[in-house]
Amino acid sequence: MNLILLHDDDFRDDGLVTLSGRRLQHVQEVHRAEVGDSLRVGKLGGLIGEGRVRALSSNRIDLEIRLYLQPPAPLPLSLLLALPRPKMLKRVLQAVTALGVKQIYLLNSYRVEKSFWGSPLLQPEKLKEQLLLGLEQCCDTLLPEIHLKQRFKPFVEDELPQFTAGRASYVAHPVAANPCPIGSRGPTTLAIGPEGGFIPYEVEKLEECGFIPVSLGRRILRVETAVPVLVSRLAPQEG
Amino acid sequence: MNLILLHDDDFRDDGLVTLSGRRLQHVQEVHRAEVGDSLRVGKLGGLIGEGRVRALSSNRIDLEIRLYLQPPAPLPLSLLLALPRPKMLKRVLQAVTALGVKQIYLLNSYRVEKSFWGSPLLQPEKLKEQLLLGLEQCCDTLLPEIHLKQRFKPFVEDELPQFTAGRASYVAHPVAANPCPIGSRGPTTLAIGPEGGFIPYEVEKLEECGFIPVSLGRRILRVETAVPVLVSRLAPQEG
Repeated sequence: MNLILLHDDDFRDDGLVTLSGRRLQHVQEVHRAEVGDSLRVGKLGGLIGEGRVRALSSNRIDLEIRLYLQPPAPLPLSLLLALPRPKMLKRVLQAVTALGVKQIYLLNSYRVEKSFWGSPLLQPEKLKEQLLLGLEQCCDTLLPEIHLKQRFKPFVEDELPQFTAGRASYVAHPVAANPCPIGSRGPTTLAIGPEGGFIPYEVEKLEECGFIPVSLGRRILRVETAVPVLVSRLAPQEG
Repeated sequence: MNLILLHDDDFRDDGLVTLSGRRLQHVQEVHRAEVGDSLRVGKLGGLIGEGRVRALSSNRIDLEIRLYLQPPAPLPLSLLLALPRPKMLKRVLQAVTALGVKQIYLLNSYRVEKSFWGSPLLQPEKLKEQLLLGLEQCCDTLLPEIHLKQRFKPFVEDELPQFTAGRASYVAHPVAANPCPIGSRGPTTLAIGPEGGFIPYEVEKLEECGFIPVSLGRRILRVETAVPVLVSRLAPQEG
């Protein structure tokens, strides 16, 4: 937790914030904060700043909040991801949130196990937990949106074409001839299949929507490795 | 398992290979191979090719092996990594093996929990299991070497200077002013600290060995996200 995320209802009438639960425990056990210390805080959907510890006891911490810094710029990259198995989904959601992705489409595909769609993790509140962990990690306050698309064909035929019009769109495909570009310009969409990849029919359907198949070379990476590699590679580059 | 790794003692006198155990189970349950099918195989430390199923029963598969393809080129990048917690270490070892890293130094650092060094995962055979999983994933046959360095100061003062001489060396440091370069030229060393980062003293010691602190911008990534992002960013680029 590199940033303590504050919600609207954390703010008391006198402007102070009182922490409890998981955030209190973290401040006590990891920061070991004392009165007068300053902690990095951010308001969900808003600015980042600091919280000065005004009062401290075993079951509460009162913070005086000063917010003054914009959150880091969102990545202009939308991610279309074949639904991974729940354990991996947690890690991938945290990672792409930390990398700054703000639009995440979880998509069905031939090689996605049907049972994954029944996972309790897909409940909105559970998904949000993972996104909040990602924001706390990377010091951001802007929550990504997650869209669940359990039917591949209707989504790709009816919704995707409007969405990708005018955007650079790439689909990771290990046998593609083109290497994945470095630093895509402007709004970009990246599609990543399940372990084992999209099947040829799915790649064709994505190509009909303007997606260009790209590869990272001969090495086949697991989804959880390919995602940060591809997202960071397509992101605007400062190097 | 995108590649079935074969060991010297898998080869019978008649040149065929008989699979058993985990590899047999995988071929039965995932590939669902039948007589005549071809499977991608590679000899540990050697060439890649195919194994044609000659005979098949519930407890064995005999393969006729043809090897003809060089494994993918190793990355000219050595990784110096503060020892992560065991669960994360497994994933990170698999990921960096899949990315092609061949030299991995696991290093102590102020923020590494002492108990991590007592993990059974650090036994050579257990470490090798993770490396083999990485090779099977990425279709490579060249096993990385892992070096355990449980004392930061003697390693950095006595061993590291000879090792980094003439190499580009970078240490990931979120507050660094320089962005991490894209596509380092020639042999490169990358140092990545624990969660929370190297302490300033450690960064100074690495700087004395010629390491340049570099950052990925304002967002602070978890080690398991930062590792694939930084390794792939410093790798020779084809894009």
